[in-house]
Amino acid sequence: MRIFSYRHGDTPGVGVVADNESFVALGEAAPDLPKTLRGILEQPSGLERARDAAGAKRALKSLAGIAFDAVIPDPQAIWCLALNYKLHVEETGLTTSSKYPQIFLRMPCTQVGHLQPILCPPPAVATKYEYEGELAVIIGKGGRHIPVERALEHVAGYSCYNEGSVREYQGHNRQFGLGKNFEQSGSFGPWLMTPDEFGDPSKHRVITRVNGIERQNATTDLMVFGVPQLINYLSQGYYLRPGDVIVSGSPGSLPPHPGEKPPANTGGVYVPGMVQMKPGDICEVEISGLGTLRNPVAADAPATYQTSLFTPR
Amino acid sequence: MRIFSYRHGDTPGVGVVADNESFVALGEAAPDLPKTLRGILEQPSGLERARDAAGAKRALKSLAGIAFDAVIPDPQAIWCLALNYKLHVEETGLTTSSKYPQIFLRMPCTQVGHLQPILCPPPAVATKYEYEGELAVIIGKGGRHIPVERALEHVAGYSCYNEGSVREYQGHNRQFGLGKNFEQSGSFGPWLMTPDEFGDPSKHRVITRVNGIERQNATTDLMVFGVPQLINYLSQGYYLRPGDVIVSGSPGSLPPHPGEKPPANTGGVYVPGMVQMKPGDICEVEISGLGTLRNPVAADAPATYQTSLFTPR
Repeated sequence: MRIFSYRHGDTPGVGVVADNESFVALGEAAPDLPKTLRGILEQPSGLERARDAAGAKRALKSLAGIAFDAVIPDPQAIWCLALNYKLHVEETGLTTSSKYPQIFLRMPCTQVGHLQPILCPPPAVATKYEYEGELAVIIGKGGRHIPVERALEHVAGYSCYNEGSVREYQGHNRQFGLGKNFEQSGSFGPWLMTPDEFGDPSKHRVITRVNGIERQNATTDLMVFGVPQLINYLSQGYYLRPGDVIVSGSPGSLPPHPGEKPPANTGGVYVPGMVQMKPGDICEVEISGLGTLRNPVAADAPATYQTSLFTPR
Repeated sequence: MRIFSYRHGDTPGVGVVADNESFVALGEAAPDLPKTLRGILEQPSGLERARDAAGAKRALKSLAGIAFDAVIPDPQAIWCLALNYKLHVEETGLTTSSKYPQIFLRMPCTQVGHLQPILCPPPAVATKYEYEGELAVIIGKGGRHIPVERALEHVAGYSCYNEGSVREYQGHNRQFGLGKNFEQSGSFGPWLMTPDEFGDPSKHRVITRVNGIERQNATTDLMVFGVPQLINYLSQGYYLRPGDVIVSGSPGSLPPHPGEKPPANTGGVYVPGMVQMKPGDICEVEISGLGTLRNPVAADAPATYQTSLFTPR
């Protein structure tokens, strides 16, 4: 099953993909289910009830008529991984513990859904706005001190994540902080695919493209800490909650394509083959067997004092 | 005005302190106001309407009959500061940029309210569970690229924060990650005090006590980056939203009291005079002119596999 969050005008909803053009609107097909995907995951058999309701293919709607939201717009935590692929460690020249994963956090309001614009800062603020294509893991059953061998029982499903990063701010000081939490800088979608369809999370491929050109392409077995290890580690300190997201880290870059020159600003950590996203670009993160998260890049608000939330064009 | 979030049984509410024993329940006194403090802050004149409604002193209730919640239980972001007092930088021996603040994030579900238990990990998980008494700043009017000289116009009020940290996990790798986000490890309260009563945020004192013994005592003018600078910095990348929280950093430790010995575990960063919190302790964070946030310390869940959220005793 592929299940997702959306908005139809101002009304949020949860849908189940029926085919390439249409989906089942659960608000109509299963009116007694919670109205958010996190709410559905919080119900012990929420996903099964969604699957049953979608099977009848009532309340079919066109995918073209809605706006995708982040798969879980309101998780209680988004745990992100730094330096969790060996090539990415090597290409950045950074060091990381080999014993414990490197964890930082994103705020839910910094992410958008499939096809929504992600925002590139104005040049006066920063020029190194970069993609990170990653496998996102969504928690189903809550748990604490989850053994590695039972970890995948706690997964509701998987999705694609573009963990968009503003490198200048990420490098301002030791903690990544604001550089990983710029306004609408990341994306999460298009949908949650359940484990029965997705299979083993270590047997997939993550591909990132900018304007159709491949920039990352790696298999998920190359993670330093795999999905079960990440779940075990986080649950030592924190009750992993239904709807929580673990963004499992960025693979390395492909080398520059023939004739390509480095970008204008290579300050800080410079990775050959990495390109910087600019307004007008299209960035895609594909995960094999799951689908492709696609976002246009739009210009963020100008660097002038504003007291209302910016709406990108 | 002192305004706070609470629960009466399972029902959440917002109250305005009337005197030492009682408060005005806004749900009754102003039924047309939003039902959460964040919701009130999101209304352009929400705080003024709360103040007007509380002035009539209708719907007076006893403070003894409710449970304090975190001041804002559901902020969209909690921005925390690392190493923002010179003495704390020196005592830890750590380095930090002098040009940019060091920012990390906490998840709202890791914090509790005034008088609620904060959780000490079991010894099998960690033994260095430590307080950090801090001034919390709560955003009122949203804004982006906020000039330093207008920053305080965006503050709805101030509160106390105990930014409880599990040092072993904080030190596992370069990003603080899980060590700053242990289950119910922090606290935020007792209330938001509005700027008309609180005055200049750089002219206060933060005092932390464990079991009545002072462990931190510093004036807020010693912050490396003051409240206006922090607001300006964060708003360069992110639209600061009503209800967002900036936790402005921990001051240094007082020296050990005469005859005190170091704790059993001084591994990692060891700060003389810092004591580790244990179940049965009482930890207080007082901010001059504002009040005292007080929390008992309880034992967290044992280090065994669990699938439901732990309720401390």
